[in-house]
Amino acid sequence: MNISHADLEPLSVGAAILGTGGGGDPYIGELALRNLLDVSADPTVIDVDSLADDAFVVTIGMSGSPTVMLEKLIDRRFADAALRRFERLVGRPADAILPVEIGGVNSLIPLMTACVTGLPVLDADGMGRAFPTLDRTSFGIAGISAFPVVMINERNETVIVEATDHARGERIARGALVPMGASGSCALYPMTGREAKDTAVKGTMSLALAIGRAVLSARVTKSDPFAAIIETARNAKPSLFARILFDGKVSDVRRETIGGYNIGKGTLTSMNDGREAHFAFQNELQYLRSEDRLLAIVPDLICILDSETAQPITCETLRYGQRVTAMGFAATPHFRTAAGLAVTGPASFGLDYPYVPIEQLATLT
Amino acid sequence: MNISHADLEPLSVGAAILGTGGGGDPYIGELALRNLLDVSADPTVIDVDSLADDAFVVTIGMSGSPTVMLEKLIDRRFADAALRRFERLVGRPADAILPVEIGGVNSLIPLMTACVTGLPVLDADGMGRAFPTLDRTSFGIAGISAFPVVMINERNETVIVEATDHARGERIARGALVPMGASGSCALYPMTGREAKDTAVKGTMSLALAIGRAVLSARVTKSDPFAAIIETARNAKPSLFARILFDGKVSDVRRETIGGYNIGKGTLTSMNDGREAHFAFQNELQYLRSEDRLLAIVPDLICILDSETAQPITCETLRYGQRVTAMGFAATPHFRTAAGLAVTGPASFGLDYPYVPIEQLATLT
Repeated sequence: MNISHADLEPLSVGAAILGTGGGGDPYIGELALRNLLDVSADPTVIDVDSLADDAFVVTIGMSGSPTVMLEKLIDRRFADAALRRFERLVGRPADAILPVEIGGVNSLIPLMTACVTGLPVLDADGMGRAFPTLDRTSFGIAGISAFPVVMINERNETVIVEATDHARGERIARGALVPMGASGSCALYPMTGREAKDTAVKGTMSLALAIGRAVLSARVTKSDPFAAIIETARNAKPSLFARILFDGKVSDVRRETIGGYNIGKGTLTSMNDGREAHFAFQNELQYLRSEDRLLAIVPDLICILDSETAQPITCETLRYGQRVTAMGFAATPHFRTAAGLAVTGPASFGLDYPYVPIEQLATLT
Repeated sequence: MNISHADLEPLSVGAAILGTGGGGDPYIGELALRNLLDVSADPTVIDVDSLADDAFVVTIGMSGSPTVMLEKLIDRRFADAALRRFERLVGRPADAILPVEIGGVNSLIPLMTACVTGLPVLDADGMGRAFPTLDRTSFGIAGISAFPVVMINERNETVIVEATDHARGERIARGALVPMGASGSCALYPMTGREAKDTAVKGTMSLALAIGRAVLSARVTKSDPFAAIIETARNAKPSLFARILFDGKVSDVRRETIGGYNIGKGTLTSMNDGREAHFAFQNELQYLRSEDRLLAIVPDLICILDSETAQPITCETLRYGQRVTAMGFAATPHFRTAAGLAVTGPASFGLDYPYVPIEQLATLT
């Protein structure tokens, strides 16, 4: 499929929902991509399984604090900079672009790269959501190396990282990224077409688009957008359990930019009975718990949306008094294995909760 | 000339004096180099002016907190890692190795690289001393780019930095270096033989060796080692003014490892009249002032030595009660121009003193 002007708003909404509060505000990416579409051919999104096994795939994404990304324009001159520098480094041109994460602005950055280069974007990603670090991917869990990691900022300053493991690589890259301006385009996780087929989270660009279309359509028809999201998710993937977790208003939110991350906590208060639910985030939402029990926790997806419009609200724009509905989605099965949970589960974020799948937590209601 | 076992102790002492309290304890490098000399040919040190104009010169050095370097062994397996990665990156083999700084361990690291690779080391460096950052070099002041900067740690983790200017490059490299373990081997400032001739601080390996020999010889003959240092410096270079600045004991010293630097302040107290002199350091000593006036300030060299033996004491080993003699040396003329002072003068370190050459300060005594 091609991505045209009409797809940008639904893609932006769907990607923000899968962004689980982080991933950067896709509205910024939507504006940048809209400008780019005026002067380039529509980018092509292709099924991973249509790739040749020996195709050369390069993963693309933007890294940094979403709060900082909001302050910086995404310049079309840099849309292909990370990919081109990567190709020059390894001495091989890419055949296809793979989004590192589908959530937030990182669903749109690869499309910008595609506009400038003419390369196809795979209908897949490495997370099926957004995560704050580049090491939490289905590729990495399957043993594919992220290195070399090429990062470029808007000054064309470049850092190339090769580390002994992904967690160390993330810390080293983040250490360089902060003085680079806390935001940069990355090219990493080079792989073959075969490896992409075997390890990527598939169909996620289509999924973001379908969820976004469902929300926009429900607004037009004045039907329930949350029911539309849940139905769309379940239709797209049988494993994609989704439900509403909590309704209330934002009664508290605190955040800081620390080490290039947007870190904080907050509380929702029910308008019906005054009961509270608490959440924490590192770029993305990590858990939501009510007064007596857990409602959802990483790697499962948590998203906070406007209660009227189902417009997703990113963690950096959450503020007191917003009336919101928190939703949860099951993580991709890649992350629910022991190896997957080791990298994406609560302990990997320093959270002192066990992982319980959102479907199981739902039965305890 | 070749560097053999007999040269290691004098070179280590002389390099520590020119290290102005930083540059890493050369004793560590001396031990590592001594082991390496047992199994390799003696490294060759050649005059810069003997280089072909079109020779390819790569600058080598170790970056990080000297306090951390003390904790880490310099492994021979990594002695050529930064140079080899650099050559692979730019696609050209080096013809000669240029030390980034002569002070401290960085006078010995290039000799280790020479042992492993067989390449000659130039009798020159970019500082004529040690500085805490890679941007403060005679090369950079003359307009030679430091980039790409290749850094490798003892795990063979690699970071390659290309930035818009040297100060930004230093901050970005330092940001990556801290999570890398706060210590790494670097290859940077690639240049031609012609550029090395035009911009390097010449004869500094010979100078370190001559100063070290003078100290060791004075110890044997029970003559004044400080007078021997001053005479050796003046004989080596007419511009190399040297003098004793202060005698006393260390009465106070505080230091922290911050952002990969060894940062601190301290006080010397005269044993004769109780008058005090204060100093500050960021890896290297930045200034020495008595109660009423400045005695020396960057880029001029300040070194604190044991009053009996003239053994130089690095800032990370300074401690209460040591009886010391502080000496000063004139900086290389490269740093005394307006362009040189902009990068190496007091303001570049955030110090609120004007730069006054040590010779002028001496006339105020």
